[in-house]
Amino acid sequence: MQQHAAHPRTDDALNSLLHPRSIAILGASDTPTKLSGRPVDYLKRFGFAGRILPVNAKRDQVQGLTAYRSVDDIDGDIDLAMIMLSAEQSADAVRACGRRGIPAAILGASGFAEVGGRGVELQEDLKAAIAESGVRVLGPNCLGMIASHERALPTFTSALDEDADLVEGPIAFLSQSGAFGGFVFNAAQNLRIGISHYLNTGNEVDLSVAELVDGLVRSDDTEVILAYLEGVTGGRRLLDAAREAHERDKPIIAVKVGRSEAGARAAQSHTASLAGEDAVFDGAISQYGILRVDGPESMLEAAQIFSTGRRAAGRRLTSLSVSGGAGALMADSAAAHGIEVRAWDEEWQRTMAAAIPVYGSPRNPVDLTGSLIAEPDILRRSLKVAVEHPGTDMIAVLLGCADNCADTLIEALDEAYRSTDRPFVVVWTGGSGRPRTRLRELGIPCYTDPAQAARALGLLADFSLRPALPAPVRPADVDTEAARAVLSRARAEGRTQLDEYESTQLIAAYGVRTAASRPATTPDEAAAVAEELGGPVAVKLLSERIGHKSDIGGVRLGLDGADAVREAADDVLRIAREAGVDDARVLVQRMADGGGTELIVGVKNDPVFGPVVVTGLGGILVEALADSRVAVAPVDPVGARRMLLSLRGSRLFGEVRGKPARDVEAAADTIARLSWLAADLADELAELDVNPLLLGAAGEGALAVDALAHLTPLN
Amino acid sequence: MQQHAAHPRTDDALNSLLHPRSIAILGASDTPTKLSGRPVDYLKRFGFAGRILPVNAKRDQVQGLTAYRSVDDIDGDIDLAMIMLSAEQSADAVRACGRRGIPAAILGASGFAEVGGRGVELQEDLKAAIAESGVRVLGPNCLGMIASHERALPTFTSALDEDADLVEGPIAFLSQSGAFGGFVFNAAQNLRIGISHYLNTGNEVDLSVAELVDGLVRSDDTEVILAYLEGVTGGRRLLDAAREAHERDKPIIAVKVGRSEAGARAAQSHTASLAGEDAVFDGAISQYGILRVDGPESMLEAAQIFSTGRRAAGRRLTSLSVSGGAGALMADSAAAHGIEVRAWDEEWQRTMAAAIPVYGSPRNPVDLTGSLIAEPDILRRSLKVAVEHPGTDMIAVLLGCADNCADTLIEALDEAYRSTDRPFVVVWTGGSGRPRTRLRELGIPCYTDPAQAARALGLLADFSLRPALPAPVRPADVDTEAARAVLSRARAEGRTQLDEYESTQLIAAYGVRTAASRPATTPDEAAAVAEELGGPVAVKLLSERIGHKSDIGGVRLGLDGADAVREAADDVLRIAREAGVDDARVLVQRMADGGGTELIVGVKNDPVFGPVVVTGLGGILVEALADSRVAVAPVDPVGARRMLLSLRGSRLFGEVRGKPARDVEAAADTIARLSWLAADLADELAELDVNPLLLGAAGEGALAVDALAHLTPLN
Repeated sequence: MQQHAAHPRTDDALNSLLHPRSIAILGASDTPTKLSGRPVDYLKRFGFAGRILPVNAKRDQVQGLTAYRSVDDIDGDIDLAMIMLSAEQSADAVRACGRRGIPAAILGASGFAEVGGRGVELQEDLKAAIAESGVRVLGPNCLGMIASHERALPTFTSALDEDADLVEGPIAFLSQSGAFGGFVFNAAQNLRIGISHYLNTGNEVDLSVAELVDGLVRSDDTEVILAYLEGVTGGRRLLDAAREAHERDKPIIAVKVGRSEAGARAAQSHTASLAGEDAVFDGAISQYGILRVDGPESMLEAAQIFSTGRRAAGRRLTSLSVSGGAGALMADSAAAHGIEVRAWDEEWQRTMAAAIPVYGSPRNPVDLTGSLIAEPDILRRSLKVAVEHPGTDMIAVLLGCADNCADTLIEALDEAYRSTDRPFVVVWTGGSGRPRTRLRELGIPCYTDPAQAARALGLLADFSLRPALPAPVRPADVDTEAARAVLSRARAEGRTQLDEYESTQLIAAYGVRTAASRPATTPDEAAAVAEELGGPVAVKLLSERIGHKSDIGGVRLGLDGADAVREAADDVLRIAREAGVDDARVLVQRMADGGGTELIVGVKNDPVFGPVVVTGLGGILVEALADSRVAVAPVDPVGARRMLLSLRGSRLFGEVRGKPARDVEAAADTIARLSWLAADLADELAELDVNPLLLGAAGEGALAVDALAHLTPLN
Repeated sequence: MQQHAAHPRTDDALNSLLHPRSIAILGASDTPTKLSGRPVDYLKRFGFAGRILPVNAKRDQVQGLTAYRSVDDIDGDIDLAMIMLSAEQSADAVRACGRRGIPAAILGASGFAEVGGRGVELQEDLKAAIAESGVRVLGPNCLGMIASHERALPTFTSALDEDADLVEGPIAFLSQSGAFGGFVFNAAQNLRIGISHYLNTGNEVDLSVAELVDGLVRSDDTEVILAYLEGVTGGRRLLDAAREAHERDKPIIAVKVGRSEAGARAAQSHTASLAGEDAVFDGAISQYGILRVDGPESMLEAAQIFSTGRRAAGRRLTSLSVSGGAGALMADSAAAHGIEVRAWDEEWQRTMAAAIPVYGSPRNPVDLTGSLIAEPDILRRSLKVAVEHPGTDMIAVLLGCADNCADTLIEALDEAYRSTDRPFVVVWTGGSGRPRTRLRELGIPCYTDPAQAARALGLLADFSLRPALPAPVRPADVDTEAARAVLSRARAEGRTQLDEYESTQLIAAYGVRTAASRPATTPDEAAAVAEELGGPVAVKLLSERIGHKSDIGGVRLGLDGADAVREAADDVLRIAREAGVDDARVLVQRMADGGGTELIVGVKNDPVFGPVVVTGLGGILVEALADSRVAVAPVDPVGARRMLLSLRGSRLFGEVRGKPARDVEAAADTIARLSWLAADLADELAELDVNPLLLGAAGEGALAVDALAHLTPLN
C-alpha cells in the first residue's frame, strides 16, 4: 500500500479532483435512482475505468459492487471522495477523508449557509474540517462533477437521465447553478459539443470558481472553458486564471447574471454568494479577455466554433450561399459583430465565376444559386476557390432543407473543411436537423440562423485577434511617500474626507498634472495668491465639511484682478460662515484654458475586484450618455487608451468641427497614474474622483481641474 | 357556367389568389419531381379540396388528372393560374388567362429583369400583358404560394420535400427570397408554427410586398404577418397596410436585410429591387408599428407567442423556475427587453410560499426548486397562485431536461395555460426536445433559452402596449402660398438652392419661429438693420452661390453697436468679392440667447418612402453620438416628441446639472411643422436643414437659427 501524504499539494489535489482514478462514494445507496445511488450508477453505466468504491455503514454490497464500512477499510490510493451524507455528517466525513489521505472531496449535501440558521453553523464547522484536514472540497450544496475523458461521473445531476452516451471533447463547463447547469450541459451534449469536464460549484466554501477555472486552464484535456456565473468572490484570482488562459490560448466564455436588479436579487436569493457590481465585473473580465455572452444559446454557439481549435487571422469572411437572401442576411449579421464581408477583387471574382452558375454572384457574398441542389459539385468547386482565396480569413456556407441530397453536400463540406485550417461554419436552416447533427459529428460548427453564426464568428475573431494582456509598469515621477503623507495628515485629524487642495496634492504626487492652486485664509491673501499664479483665477470654498460647494455659491470662476479676487473670497468665506463653518479657507486656482474636452476619472475599491478605475466623458455628456468604462487597477496607458476609445462618445477625441484631435495619450497616462494610486493606496483610499480632467489638443496634455478623495472609514 | 368579369376588382383578385378554389397549372409536367410537376404533386399530396386543372399542350392526363390543352378548354370558374412556362411564353399566358377571366396568376419562370438584357424586354412585355389583361400577378421569378387552410400549394419550393403534414394556423409569411424563405417556412413548420399563407414575391412586377401585406391583413385566416424583406418599393403603401394591421391588432414582424453595406449589396445583386436607405426604413416601420427582428430565429420566436393571439396588459412578468439560475438569467434577459420582474408584495409572497418548498423563493423570480421533479404538484399549485396574482401581466415557467416526468409537468402547464388569457411561455432547456414539441402542439410557446423567451415577450409587450398611430392634423398658422412663393422666386431665377434668408422665410411660412433677421446690401444698411433689430447681432454672408460660408470667414457673431456691424459687413462683403461673388449681400440676424440645447432637424425626399423628417441632437453631439431619428412626413407633435425622447442623448432634455428641463413640446411642434412643409412641398423641395434649432427652457420655445433648402433639380 502506497503511503499517502496527509496534506497533498493543492495542484495535486485539484488534479485528483479533475482526473480521478479511484472514487470513494460515502453514503452510496444500493438504489440506482435515489440521489445517493446515482453516482455509483453513473460511474458503472458510463464505464469509469478506475476503482468505484462505495462506502455504506450497513451494506457489504452496493449496486453489485463491494461496499466498505468506512474509507479506512479501503486499500490503495483514493483520489476523490464523493460525500453523499447529510449536512450534519459532512464535516466529519471530510475529517475522515483527511485522515485517510484523500486529497479531494465533493460534498453533495445542501442545508448549509444557503438555508441560514443551523446551516451557517454547519458551514463554519465544515470550513474548520477543511482547514484541519487539508482536503480540497467542491461544494457543498453542489451536484458534483463529470470528467468525460475518465468517464468519471461523481454526480447526482438529473441531466444524465437520458440514455445518450457522453460526447467527449475539449470543452469544460463550470456552473454556479446546479439544475440550470445540468440543463445546459445536456443541451451541449445534444449539440454534440464535446465536454471534458462539467462542474457545479455549490457554496464554494473551499474551491472557488476562480480556482477551478485556473485548474481547468492548466488541464491538458481542456481547451475552452464555459462558465455560468451568479456571483464571483476573489475577483483577482479569477483574473489571474484569465491571464493564464489568455497565454495558453484557451478562451473563457461566461454567462453572468446580475445585469439587472431583479437578476442580481434572484442570484442572491438562492446562493450564498454575493453578486458583484455588474459594471465592474464587465469591465474587469473584458480587460482580461473573458468573453461574455447573454445566455446558454450564445454560449453553446460559441463553444461549437471554439471547440475546433481554429483561430482567425483577420475579420474577412467569405460567405457562400445557396440563397441570395441568406447571404444578404449573413452579411448584415456579420457586420453587426465586426466581421467584414468584402467584395472580392475582380480577378478572384472571375475565378469564382468559373465555379458557379452564370446567374449566381461571385462577388462575396457569393450566391451559388439553387442549382447547387441538382449539382452539388458547384459547392465543391466554389469552396475550393474560397479556400485558396488569400483574402479569406473565415468561411461560412449557407444552406437549407435539402435533406434528400444532404449526404453529397456534407461530403463536399467535409472535404473543404479538412483542406483548410481557417474557421469554417455552416448555416443550415430548416430541414429535418439530421444534416446539422451529422456536420457537428464531423466537428464542423453548424447553426440554423446566420445571426447565430455571425455572433460566434465575431467572438472567435475577437479572441483570435485579442490584444496582449496588461502588464502595467509603474510610471515615472510617482512619489508614494508624499501621497501617504497627505493621507496621514487627514487620518491624524480623524478625517476620512480630504478637501480639494489635499486631493489635488494626492494626485499630483502620482504625477498627474493639476491646475496651479494655493489655499488662502483671507481675501487679501487670496488676492496675493492670485497675483502670484497670474492670469484669471477661480476662487473655491475649501472645507472638507461642506460638500457640493458650487450649489451654495462657493465657486467663483474667471476672476481677473486683485479686487475681483478679494471680493469673491470675501463672499465665499461669508457663505461658509453662514453655513456654520468658521475656519473655512478658499482655494485660489489658475483658470484652465477653455476648449478642452471634459473627462471624469474615478477610482474606488470594489469588494470583489479590489481597486478599480472608472472613466467617462465629463461635463454634460455624463448625463447624456451614462457611458463609462471600468478596469481593475493598475492599468497601463495602452489599456487606459482602449477604455477611452471604447466609449460611445469617443469620436469627440478625434477632429470635430475644426476642433483638433484631443490628447488621448495624456488622458491615458493620467488614468494609468490614478490607477496606480488606487492600487498602491487601496488600504487607505476608499474613493477618489477627478472631475473634470480637461483634455487639450494633441500634445497639450490633460489637466485635473478638481479632485475629491475619501479614505476608508476607521473601524 | 358562371360569367366571368374580364377585369375583376383587385380585392377579389387578391382574394382569389389567397383563397383559391380552383387552380389551373399551365405547363404542368407529368413528372411529379420536376419543377413544373411539383405544383400538381403538392396539390394532390396535401389534399387540395378544390379543382386541380393541369394545362399541357401535349397530354390528356397529367399525374393521373385530366389535363387540358389550354385554359379555354376548362369549364367553370378558375380562381388562379400557376404559370410554369418559360419567360418567353409567360406574357402570352397571362393574356390568355385574362381572356379566360382568370383573376390572378403566379409566374414561376425566371429570366426577366433579374438577368438583364432580353429579360428586361420580356419583363416590359409582361407588364404590358398585365395592364391589358387585368390579371393580378405574383412574380415572376418566384416559387409560388402555399395557402394552408385551403391546402392549396401552387408552388415548386423544395421546402416541401419532407413528408411532414402542413401545420395550419394564423401566421402568414411573405418572403422576397425564394430559397431562404422556403428554409424559414420549413423551420417554422418544424416548430409547429401554424401557417395560413406562405408567399414568395419574386420580381414584383405587379403585386408588391406592400399590396400583399395589405391583402393578408384583410384576410380572416391571418392574424400575424411575418416578412423577410430585401427591398421595398412603394413604402407609403406598406405603411398604409401597417396602419390597417395596427387597427386590426395584427402584428407585422419583419426581417429586413441591408443594414450593412455588404448586406445591401447582396440584396441588390440578386433581386431586381433596390434596397432603400436603412435608417429611413427603420424609422418609417417603427413609426407605423412594424416590429423588426434580426433574423429568422427571432422572427419564429416571436411568431410562436403572437400566434396565441394573447396580449399583455403591462410589462410585469412573473417567472417560476425549477432552478434559481434560470430564474436569475430570465430576470436579466427580461430587463434587457423592457420586461420587469418585480418582487411580489409580502402578502402575495406568503401565498406563494405556501405553494412551494420552504427552501424555495416566493419573491419573484419564484424559485420552485428541484423538488418540482419529484412533486409536480408544486408546479400546479404555484401556477395557480401566479394566475390569480393581480400584478402579473405575463408568466414564464423555466424547466429543463426531465423527460421522464415531462407528461405530468406538461399537464400542469396546459391546465394553467388554459386557465388564463395572459401571455404565458415555457423555457425548457436541454432534454430530448419532445416536451418542447408537445407544448408547441398544445399551442404553448416554448423556448430553449431564457434570452429567447424574453426577446419574444418584449416584442409582445411592445405590440400590446403600442401607441396609437399618427393621424397628423395640419398645424395652425401655415401659409402654404407664402412658402410656394419663396420657391417660385428661386425657380424663376433658375436656381435650385435657396439662400439662408429665403430658407428662413420658407420655414417661417410654416409657423416655425426663426431668429429675427433682414438682408442688407451695404455695410451702412447692415448697421441700420442691426439697430432696428436691437441687441447683439450676427452678420452672415448671403449668397446662394457660396456654401460653407463659415469656413471662409463669412459669419461674424455677437456684434454690438453700429461700428462693429458696419466693419463686419464690410469684411464679409470683401470676402465674397474675393471669392468672385460681386452681388453678395449680408444677413443681419439678432443673436439668440445662449444656453439653449441644439437640435438639428432636416427634411428630405426618400425614393421609397417620400418626404421624411430627421432629427438629432445638434452641436458637438451630432458627431459624438451619430444619433438621429427618422419619420415619414407628416408627423404630429406626439410622434415628433416620441422621436426626440427615443434619442440616446434624450436625457439632455430633462434637468441636467441645474439647467432646467428643455421645451420638448416646442421642438416637437417645430418638427411637426417642418414635416408638413416636407409633405406639402415634396414636388418642389429636395432637402431642407435647420441647424441649429435652439431649444430653450420649458415654456421658452424653440428658435431656428440657420436654415438651408434645396429644390429638386429641373429635368
